[in-house]
Amino acid sequence: MTASLEWLGYSAGLLTTLAFLPQVYKTWQRKSAQDISYGMYALFSVGLVLWTAYGFFKQALPIVMANCVTLLLALTILILKFHYEHRNK
Amino acid sequence: MTASLEWLGYSAGLLTTLAFLPQVYKTWQRKSAQDISYGMYALFSVGLVLWTAYGFFKQALPIVMANCVTLLLALTILILKFHYEHRNK
Repeated sequence: MTASLEWLGYSAGLLTTLAFLPQVYKTWQRKSAQDISYGMYALFSVGLVLWTAYGFFKQALPIVMANCVTLLLALTILILKFHYEHRNK
Repeated sequence: MTASLEWLGYSAGLLTTLAFLPQVYKTWQRKSAQDISYGMYALFSVGLVLWTAYGFFKQALPIVMANCVTLLLALTILILKFHYEHRNK
């Protein structure tokens, strides 16, 4: 049970993390992120830091790993949005 | 420790869940979601279902609650995007 539970966690983390890759690609490709909310990615990034801490104390490695990588991708989207909006002005 | 750990989890879940509210509002307000990736929200939604199951078996209520509400918001964004793109054609 414990091993399959870990695998369930890794699969979940893999999906909710990899999910941000198509968004990074789309933003980079369109050079536009006007429909994307700053508020969402700001709140989400702070939340991801807390999830990482939660996973650490809960000794749940899938939570720690998934949230660290998701944080990197979320920050990438935030930076791309900022970059394109200031360049397009 | 256990009580503060639960609170850390609830705060994390609250942030990564509430984060999607400004995106729902922005999408509804702009009536456009062209910069938003279908792939992201599709993969993300499947991942959220798996996280909910993981939280259930891990007996981690914050994970279950947060992911259920996030799933509702992610599906709302997916439906709004589909709606606006088919209406604008």
